[in-house]
Amino acid sequence: MLTFDETSSGVFIVSVTPFDERGALDLAGVDRLVDFYLSKGVAGITILGMMGEAPKLSASESRIFVEAVCARVGGAVPVVVGVSSPGFASMQELTEAAMGAGASGVMVAPPATLRTDSQIVDYFRMTAETLGPVPFALQDFPLATGVQIAAPILRTIADEIPTCVMLKHEDWPGLDKITALRQAEAKGGRRISILVGNGGLFLPEELARGGDGAMTGFAYPEMMVQVCRLHAMGDTDAASDLFDAYLPLVRYEQQPGIGLATRKHVLHARGVIASARIRRPGRALSGMETAEVERLIARQARRLDQLVRIEELS
Amino acid sequence: MLTFDETSSGVFIVSVTPFDERGALDLAGVDRLVDFYLSKGVAGITILGMMGEAPKLSASESRIFVEAVCARVGGAVPVVVGVSSPGFASMQELTEAAMGAGASGVMVAPPATLRTDSQIVDYFRMTAETLGPVPFALQDFPLATGVQIAAPILRTIADEIPTCVMLKHEDWPGLDKITALRQAEAKGGRRISILVGNGGLFLPEELARGGDGAMTGFAYPEMMVQVCRLHAMGDTDAASDLFDAYLPLVRYEQQPGIGLATRKHVLHARGVIASARIRRPGRALSGMETAEVERLIARQARRLDQLVRIEELS
Amino acid sequence: MLTFDETSSGVFIVSVTPFDERGALDLAGVDRLVDFYLSKGVAGITILGMMGEAPKLSASESRIFVEAVCARVGGAVPVVVGVSSPGFASMQELTEAAMGAGASGVMVAPPATLRTDSQIVDYFRMTAETLGPVPFALQDFPLATGVQIAAPILRTIADEIPTCVMLKHEDWPGLDKITALRQAEAKGGRRISILVGNGGLFLPEELARGGDGAMTGFAYPEMMVQVCRLHAMGDTDAASDLFDAYLPLVRYEQQPGIGLATRKHVLHARGVIASARIRRPGRALSGMETAEVERLIARQARRLDQLVRIEELS
Amino acid sequence: MLTFDETSSGVFIVSVTPFDERGALDLAGVDRLVDFYLSKGVAGITILGMMGEAPKLSASESRIFVEAVCARVGGAVPVVVGVSSPGFASMQELTEAAMGAGASGVMVAPPATLRTDSQIVDYFRMTAETLGPVPFALQDFPLATGVQIAAPILRTIADEIPTCVMLKHEDWPGLDKITALRQAEAKGGRRISILVGNGGLFLPEELARGGDGAMTGFAYPEMMVQVCRLHAMGDTDAASDLFDAYLPLVRYEQQPGIGLATRKHVLHARGVIASARIRRPGRALSGMETAEVERLIARQARRLDQLVRIEELS
Repeated sequence: MLTFDETSSGVFIVSVTPFDERGALDLAGVDRLVDFYLSKGVAGITILGMMGEAPKLSASESRIFVEAVCARVGGAVPVVVGVSSPGFASMQELTEAAMGAGASGVMVAPPATLRTDSQIVDYFRMTAETLGPVPFALQDFPLATGVQIAAPILRTIADEIPTCVMLKHEDWPGLDKITALRQAEAKGGRRISILVGNGGLFLPEELARGGDGAMTGFAYPEMMVQVCRLHAMGDTDAASDLFDAYLPLVRYEQQPGIGLATRKHVLHARGVIASARIRRPGRALSGMETAEVERLIARQARRLDQLVRIEELS
Repeated sequence: MLTFDETSSGVFIVSVTPFDERGALDLAGVDRLVDFYLSKGVAGITILGMMGEAPKLSASESRIFVEAVCARVGGAVPVVVGVSSPGFASMQELTEAAMGAGASGVMVAPPATLRTDSQIVDYFRMTAETLGPVPFALQDFPLATGVQIAAPILRTIADEIPTCVMLKHEDWPGLDKITALRQAEAKGGRRISILVGNGGLFLPEELARGGDGAMTGFAYPEMMVQVCRLHAMGDTDAASDLFDAYLPLVRYEQQPGIGLATRKHVLHARGVIASARIRRPGRALSGMETAEVERLIARQARRLDQLVRIEELS
Repeated sequence: MLTFDETSSGVFIVSVTPFDERGALDLAGVDRLVDFYLSKGVAGITILGMMGEAPKLSASESRIFVEAVCARVGGAVPVVVGVSSPGFASMQELTEAAMGAGASGVMVAPPATLRTDSQIVDYFRMTAETLGPVPFALQDFPLATGVQIAAPILRTIADEIPTCVMLKHEDWPGLDKITALRQAEAKGGRRISILVGNGGLFLPEELARGGDGAMTGFAYPEMMVQVCRLHAMGDTDAASDLFDAYLPLVRYEQQPGIGLATRKHVLHARGVIASARIRRPGRALSGMETAEVERLIARQARRLDQLVRIEELS
Repeated sequence: MLTFDETSSGVFIVSVTPFDERGALDLAGVDRLVDFYLSKGVAGITILGMMGEAPKLSASESRIFVEAVCARVGGAVPVVVGVSSPGFASMQELTEAAMGAGASGVMVAPPATLRTDSQIVDYFRMTAETLGPVPFALQDFPLATGVQIAAPILRTIADEIPTCVMLKHEDWPGLDKITALRQAEAKGGRRISILVGNGGLFLPEELARGGDGAMTGFAYPEMMVQVCRLHAMGDTDAASDLFDAYLPLVRYEQQPGIGLATRKHVLHARGVIASARIRRPGRALSGMETAEVERLIARQARRLDQLVRIEELS
């Protein structure tokens, strides 16, 4: 059974939040979106992350969306809910709603004001106190939050706070951080799950360093799922071959702002969501960006074809 | 009649949010707090500002607090509600609740991500579109938000957006900004109200530059009210004498973090709030800080005495 | 003849600065480094950029290195010298030394303190006044400087300051910025050269948007030179095929901090520099990083082989 | 004899750098400036600090200025030279020049890129290694540098690095930091000198917490010297009375940017420097600012008169 805990692995897809053309929550589209992710073999679904436009939803919208997603997932895989908030009262309110709706846990990124090591540790102590028994993933994403957490501080948190079950790893550069954490575990530290982010931009290397999978988004979740599987089977070259075929688009989707527009554009083109609409101040892809994305998709398809033929020849 | 519009003047006190000793909203204490502010002669009350610990309240707590304050104020003075939010959906939800409860308008600070002039203007266009007919104060507080708004850009916003009725001015340094804005008005720009902030640290100079009053907090609102009155009467020396007597404490209250603890400590000591409690990660004054504040208050009282005696002699 | 002006195109390679194993400037190695770059077909050499560890050199070391490079280049291609500085006195001193040594121009990135549009324009006015007749490239690299420059502001600078001859473009996302600048030129704006950066991570798309080439570093400059040539010949698919073969390493080299260590490691492995040493607080590649880089290089070679065979078959 | 070491106390005045009307170094004016400071009873002179416009001087200008100041001081008091630099090579070059000219030590602020505790400790280890036997003051000024150093980390540095002899304390809020440091010393930590900054805005409280004096600038150094003396004599009320008389101007001088213009304006008005000129992008006081400063000086003189009369009466 799939769970959200220290042993979680595979791809926890960071879900988009679907809106209709006027920018309202597209609740009718939730089922199709969830079904799409499940059909691609994800091990979990993370909603209300940064790329889920969480800060753009009101508190009541957030609750409604969580309920709709949890209802459709129906326990097939764990649902993790982003509850990062400028204050603990909001965090607690949304956590309670999410767990009541059937979520398996939550995700918390540190607020931009934290600087020193002790401020960071104190913050996650208060977070754990706020969440009570609810398990959480710590999102370590300095490029977005401005907060840098040294590996030994992540160890302190993991060793001291049993409800911190997972690191959503997206430091940049971050490869040595995974190694440092795994080495500390080898010396007796508590093991937690490490799922990597950044749209999967370093997925092959991160898995080799000891990542358990990915918790991030990409318009082709099947690539990340398959790369994780090939890696688990020890076929790292096949994993990298597959990854490289998608890399030009992964790179394009990693652009701040435009990245989410790209992802929603592709998911719309794939028939997964009814509208590529992003809430303000986000914007849709321009005409030239659309052409670039479509060219990358065509080249990607050609490359996947080549891969198949090369494999057949060998 | 007192209103919240382009002509507003005097002191719009930035209210603290009272908690009980366990950190819960002290709704029972709202009446006493409101009565205190009204008794000191304020021209308005601003709630859910940064020093009102707004980000630490959940959405439902915010609504409850707004309702309690508006009910007690009962239209005696305008109530302005801070609705700054990472997204427009939350901003809209709280604005509707506030106006429904009887508030006169709202206050909006820009999110920390804004950098270029056009990003700033666009943001306030979207804000105005979100708020509809509701009048708002633009909070210009770069030290807290990281967003720097040049005077000509404030003019663009004031001239283009009729619902922007007030500037909560707390740039630092900011004196020349007031002058630049007033000069542009003299050349035909639309006049808006300018109420100054920063705990009143530059109140005499800011009034002389053209400020209409203050929208900020200080544990002795009567000082700010009286300084504004003396200034309006043209007695700038008496205004400065009074201000200078309080300046050592104003300075102490301007310390980030500790400042709010100081303000709540004094309001508690004055019998205005039942507890000086601040929500996490804020903290109460340490013993040494308490002693410092009490020494400053004792010296302040002595100085006010001297002022009276000097006046009697002259 | 190759020049540094509004018409410059091709690859201006951002040179590393070679140190010996003890961290001293490796002046003896300058000739080999210059010869390597020239042999790869670069159109210019940019020294003392961020990836040239410029801030880690003393003023006297900077002058000595500029002289050594200019002497070896001997006018074969333009040499551009990074002179970004916290103050104009240092900028002027280094510019005079560089032009005296035979450089063709300089490069200037804005200081991190700039925020508003007018602060930015004023800064480059003062820069131009400081530089006098010396042509300069404006480095637009918000991820490193924190300064965001809107496209219309770049237009203002280009139109108003004739000595600003080039944009070193490395905004992220930045594709639409190139288009906006070229469209403004089409409507009568002054044309300047746009050379792209970010290690070439978006080189194919940037050239298609109107970039004239690249001003950045990568351990295989020949890739960037060849991509620019293929693009100029209209063979965009061949350009992208070549680019994609190197993309996994380009991506790896784009990691902050580790990126420069990677570049120097590869240049050392290729026999270009005598030591991969980076000055403190930089560090060399770890053992695992080295293994990752070497794996990427091996895969890259295999992929280039495949490309040749695919081409032969067609 | 006055020294720069762990026992230093009193006022180390942060000197302005005098320019002539065209912005060139006013070397002819150095003697008058130094004599002024010495005549006011300072215990040391700190040059090339942030308020000494250090980043606006070229490397050669810095050396020339250091030599001129040291020559005039002639060993009467210690001279401390700001050598903060983006790289260690520049730091070393200036330190060697300074010590050769007769300086007693240097001052180092951390670069803005540091975030985690271990990055900070590592930086000062590398600093100490760079400086060799030269004693240094660590400038802890988060508002300017963006770097927050927790008190235990300052302790680590003080305990581990014997050449770190002084903390230039200007955290904000910072009172509890002084107490924490002194308490750690009481428990066996190595004692270092703590001189406070921020223009002296919290001087009375900081001395009471355990500060040894001030290392900062203010246009009336005699106030800071006298406040330190009165405090040392145990007459804290007289110290505060004197301080309060100057506080309105201290506050005005603490405004970023305008503060230095204010200081130079007053020093020029007092006949200490030949020109109030500030190097670009700094600017001189506007007419209204000048009027404000002159009003504050007039009120300050009146208040000092009152103090004398009150004292005579008592």
